[in-house]
Amino acid sequence: MKALVYHGPGQRVWEDKPQPGVEHPTDAVVRITHTTLCGTDLHILKGDVPTVEAGRTLGHEGVGVIEAVGEGVANLQAGDQVLISCVTSCGHCDYCKRGMYAHCRDGGWILGHLIDGTQAEYVRIPHADNSLYRLPQGMDPAAAVMLSDILPTGHEIGALNGEVGLGDTVAIVGAGPIGLAALLTSRFYSPARIIMIDLDENRLAMARQLGATDTIAGDPVDAVMKLTGGEGVDVAMEAVGIPQTFEVCQRIVRAGGHIANIGVHGTSVEFHLEDLWIKNVTVRTGLVNTNTIPVLMRTLEAGGVEPTALVSHRFALDDIEHAYDVFGQAAKEKAIKLILTAQ
Amino acid sequence: MKALVYHGPGQRVWEDKPQPGVEHPTDAVVRITHTTLCGTDLHILKGDVPTVEAGRTLGHEGVGVIEAVGEGVANLQAGDQVLISCVTSCGHCDYCKRGMYAHCRDGGWILGHLIDGTQAEYVRIPHADNSLYRLPQGMDPAAAVMLSDILPTGHEIGALNGEVGLGDTVAIVGAGPIGLAALLTSRFYSPARIIMIDLDENRLAMARQLGATDTIAGDPVDAVMKLTGGEGVDVAMEAVGIPQTFEVCQRIVRAGGHIANIGVHGTSVEFHLEDLWIKNVTVRTGLVNTNTIPVLMRTLEAGGVEPTALVSHRFALDDIEHAYDVFGQAAKEKAIKLILTAQ
Amino acid sequence: MKALVYHGPGQRVWEDKPQPGVEHPTDAVVRITHTTLCGTDLHILKGDVPTVEAGRTLGHEGVGVIEAVGEGVANLQAGDQVLISCVTSCGHCDYCKRGMYAHCRDGGWILGHLIDGTQAEYVRIPHADNSLYRLPQGMDPAAAVMLSDILPTGHEIGALNGEVGLGDTVAIVGAGPIGLAALLTSRFYSPARIIMIDLDENRLAMARQLGATDTIAGDPVDAVMKLTGGEGVDVAMEAVGIPQTFEVCQRIVRAGGHIANIGVHGTSVEFHLEDLWIKNVTVRTGLVNTNTIPVLMRTLEAGGVEPTALVSHRFALDDIEHAYDVFGQAAKEKAIKLILTAQ
Amino acid sequence: MKALVYHGPGQRVWEDKPQPGVEHPTDAVVRITHTTLCGTDLHILKGDVPTVEAGRTLGHEGVGVIEAVGEGVANLQAGDQVLISCVTSCGHCDYCKRGMYAHCRDGGWILGHLIDGTQAEYVRIPHADNSLYRLPQGMDPAAAVMLSDILPTGHEIGALNGEVGLGDTVAIVGAGPIGLAALLTSRFYSPARIIMIDLDENRLAMARQLGATDTIAGDPVDAVMKLTGGEGVDVAMEAVGIPQTFEVCQRIVRAGGHIANIGVHGTSVEFHLEDLWIKNVTVRTGLVNTNTIPVLMRTLEAGGVEPTALVSHRFALDDIEHAYDVFGQAAKEKAIKLILTAQ
Repeated sequence: MKALVYHGPGQRVWEDKPQPGVEHPTDAVVRITHTTLCGTDLHILKGDVPTVEAGRTLGHEGVGVIEAVGEGVANLQAGDQVLISCVTSCGHCDYCKRGMYAHCRDGGWILGHLIDGTQAEYVRIPHADNSLYRLPQGMDPAAAVMLSDILPTGHEIGALNGEVGLGDTVAIVGAGPIGLAALLTSRFYSPARIIMIDLDENRLAMARQLGATDTIAGDPVDAVMKLTGGEGVDVAMEAVGIPQTFEVCQRIVRAGGHIANIGVHGTSVEFHLEDLWIKNVTVRTGLVNTNTIPVLMRTLEAGGVEPTALVSHRFALDDIEHAYDVFGQAAKEKAIKLILTAQ
Repeated sequence: MKALVYHGPGQRVWEDKPQPGVEHPTDAVVRITHTTLCGTDLHILKGDVPTVEAGRTLGHEGVGVIEAVGEGVANLQAGDQVLISCVTSCGHCDYCKRGMYAHCRDGGWILGHLIDGTQAEYVRIPHADNSLYRLPQGMDPAAAVMLSDILPTGHEIGALNGEVGLGDTVAIVGAGPIGLAALLTSRFYSPARIIMIDLDENRLAMARQLGATDTIAGDPVDAVMKLTGGEGVDVAMEAVGIPQTFEVCQRIVRAGGHIANIGVHGTSVEFHLEDLWIKNVTVRTGLVNTNTIPVLMRTLEAGGVEPTALVSHRFALDDIEHAYDVFGQAAKEKAIKLILTAQ
Repeated sequence: MKALVYHGPGQRVWEDKPQPGVEHPTDAVVRITHTTLCGTDLHILKGDVPTVEAGRTLGHEGVGVIEAVGEGVANLQAGDQVLISCVTSCGHCDYCKRGMYAHCRDGGWILGHLIDGTQAEYVRIPHADNSLYRLPQGMDPAAAVMLSDILPTGHEIGALNGEVGLGDTVAIVGAGPIGLAALLTSRFYSPARIIMIDLDENRLAMARQLGATDTIAGDPVDAVMKLTGGEGVDVAMEAVGIPQTFEVCQRIVRAGGHIANIGVHGTSVEFHLEDLWIKNVTVRTGLVNTNTIPVLMRTLEAGGVEPTALVSHRFALDDIEHAYDVFGQAAKEKAIKLILTAQ
Repeated sequence: MKALVYHGPGQRVWEDKPQPGVEHPTDAVVRITHTTLCGTDLHILKGDVPTVEAGRTLGHEGVGVIEAVGEGVANLQAGDQVLISCVTSCGHCDYCKRGMYAHCRDGGWILGHLIDGTQAEYVRIPHADNSLYRLPQGMDPAAAVMLSDILPTGHEIGALNGEVGLGDTVAIVGAGPIGLAALLTSRFYSPARIIMIDLDENRLAMARQLGATDTIAGDPVDAVMKLTGGEGVDVAMEAVGIPQTFEVCQRIVRAGGHIANIGVHGTSVEFHLEDLWIKNVTVRTGLVNTNTIPVLMRTLEAGGVEPTALVSHRFALDDIEHAYDVFGQAAKEKAIKLILTAQ
């Protein structure tokens, strides 16, 4: 089969590789029909994620059809169309029993990281019963791919960790794919105002289309304070991953407010406890557990969210190298999420 | 009347001052029978709290008897024995309606800070109906004084903000008065283990008496990791207020765990988002709202907590200058909380 | 002044009555500009609420302008345009401090019940600081009147007590004003499906306009089971107040589901513990606390809800006897909520 | 092997039966070392549970040693000493993912009900990874047996469903094994007062030993109202399963309070919505999910609970017929929980 293989920093090739099979009784093998690229894949290619070894197939998102299951798989069978969670989870360990699939003792984020991933014609999924979700009849697979990672991340690590509530004022710092997913999913909880902050006017324009009530391209702190009558925001989400944007969050959050960190950070940040100790704020971090995939799927099925609004480009799966080129220049190409479809 | 008056950094005098009266319809004037000193009072004396002006009577804790009430006070009357909350709150503003008394638009921590406080023979209490609590018959006033600030702070900012739960492992960094109050109140929620960390062996000995299951005087990070089989703790409480102790909390908290910051910080700290972004942790800060005073009072009445265990010294109220001397050398004097009683 | 006065079962007159004044320091007197009628007013007129004495001015909803305030009122002044909560609350008693304004020791539902109400040219409001809400500039007063009672009731006793969640299936039994308010406010939390059940096709048509995904006019139990693949609903709301409709809720709620009782019941009901003991269900009852008025006001201001969609008729205030005639034949007149405006 | 087999109403025999083996890849076979009897077993023997067929081995509680595991079992192996949950759960279905193991699509309460149970020398446990818990070194197996059902039931369906909180007043109607387990586990949350209500003075004496602050043998409603100054209790737990005791709960619960139904009911009850609609109460029902077994196990290990206090009698496993005789006359024999140990 073909797979997009990482060969060390800067090197990726769509090349032949042996097709995976069932290795453990709880495995399933899935034939990929739809997949996408994630900002994390670009980080890996830059060499920022040293736990990824050369030879690894990338990708942790996708929809496909089950080719084979191990004999310990109870709820799935060959031929089922399934959504692949970016997080693999056994369902039985102490973390899984607490719903913390991201920290599964025999899983977590391993696809396209510690085991071969979804940017391939076939992928082996461990703990299939807990890591795959059967697609309801008639669901658009391109929409479903957005439920592998980006929508659950925006929802769980943004909206839920930020405790977005009715009538709240929310600010999201960063209008990239993940910031836009946080915007889409924050709207489930009916905040009064969602302020998007970014330097890229194209992304802010998209944010307004997706429901942002206000957008800020310049100095955000003064602008937010002006918009909120000096009070600050109930929820500030960091969706970039650098110290400056986390700084903004600290300066715009109101007393009693929440900071939800969604960004992946490579360095420590300055935390202003000298100001915040008295402000009764909550800061939350996290890798997505994807345990809201079922409820997001029901919402998608009911027409309550339109995740394909995030899809900016479509490619054939075997044109994935081109897709990487486009995604690598996201600002210039106005790329948000790309869908790759097996022909 | 006599009052302990701040006259600028390092200067405090027990001196004559006019007795306060009712100024607003919702005021009460209380004759102090019992009060105490707080670490914050020492900070003020060092000049660390510039919002305190010379001439201010210090103190924000106490029990007394109502001398007079304004005509807008509905639930209290002269002669009532009352506990004074360290936080004054109107009960009606947006923050009060959300239970965030610490951020009351016409209150918050103002006693001994922005208005004259409780280290005096009489004190005026604004918004009396919401800021005073009638003592149940037979309650020990010395125990009740611990409910003005230290016990609610340990409870709300430590145990509740840390979400201490059944079977949890809790670590409290700092075994001073506030750390010990956090220990006492964390026990309400039946954690399996409470690890106290401090450099002072006397305080650790007291912590063991009060229910700590483990105490650590040396390098805490390795010791905690050893005690927890490398997992870290469910709840880490910072009860000192310096960067080093907040650092310890970050290094010992487990995935999915909580950091409750109780310490008052004068500088920013380094926040290790490069490690914590993936660990699904929650960090909370806060000034006490004291809205758990009623439930703490019921618990005290039922014998469910013994706050006088924190009382190390007793003085007459007019011996308060001596009390300050002792409290200023807390380690040497083995001082935790001091009770001052009007004769 | 003029007021709508109850003179015993079946008797109500718009008649002269002395204008109320400030009696307690925390009172305000409000000149009514907008009010409405509630199903409860009809119950009173039938003699179903024996605690209402002859001579009582009816009404517990309204918007107006403050005429005078007592000297203990801090946050309001003459000339302020205010929304009147149907529940009066002191803000200081044990229940108020827990947010349970409905059970205020010196308030609760007293307007148009134990003290004179809002269907008058003027009304005295006790505990004004806690029971009145200043209208934001430009807010439609007719929309705001819906926040006195019906929208908070639908929200707190329907949506919140029912714990309506993302992707849920909700069934509301009864599409009268309160059922429709529950529908409008349930939508804040993005359920996948809202099934409205009623015998009146006009009301079901309105429900569809307001966002119901399904409506049922016939035998509801079988129909709901069919719609939900035999699983039942996550949330069942009783919005009528009779045993038969509560029975429906018990038969359609799924394992782990919630029943929110909004209806006012005059008799006991049969509770099927022989079936439900094993189903892990939650049943909640309640009188509205109105403590979500501020957040509903922010939502209204942001355009997140259109409560005037519930307004079916408009009258001049002094035409209130006619309004009662219409409201008394609600089905025939297709009446939902009526707005009465002082000229 | 030997097993206690049900042969229709009133008939039970300790008799030979084929030893079970692994049937599915996720099964384990456990050699029972310790088991106990449950009130439910007596109900089955009376013929009250028609889903139990003749020939069924009874029992759903126990501790033992794993004899064999299927090849889909990942976390357990032969020789492990394990606690058996009374509820079997796959860990993967929609209910399991929500933590509702009692409603597992391929499990729930099936042991000693729909499949052969634990009152035998060997038992087959489906979904072993999710339904068995490895015992920590040195844990008393007799104490651990109490964690199969009775302690999690008291905890989850009593204390947690009742939302027992700090300073609360709790009343438990019924001081049998399950009421006493609710008492033991309610204490984790530090209520101020626990009132036990029963007709049997022996059980009330035991309740006092286990921490009840008050006991009532006579008419409970007046007595509770007297004890609570007419307010009623924050939490009322029904631990009997008949209409009269559920009636008591309704009459003693205060405004804003919780009723937790633990009893197994055979008939419907009268529910006083005519009184309760306005009282903002919550009623919860449920079969135990046992998802708090891990946290209870940590608490037991830390010495935070002494479940063997519930053990009144001990027998050899092959003396189980005698144990049934004793348990069938629990009041006369002062029996609470019996431990049966394989020799």
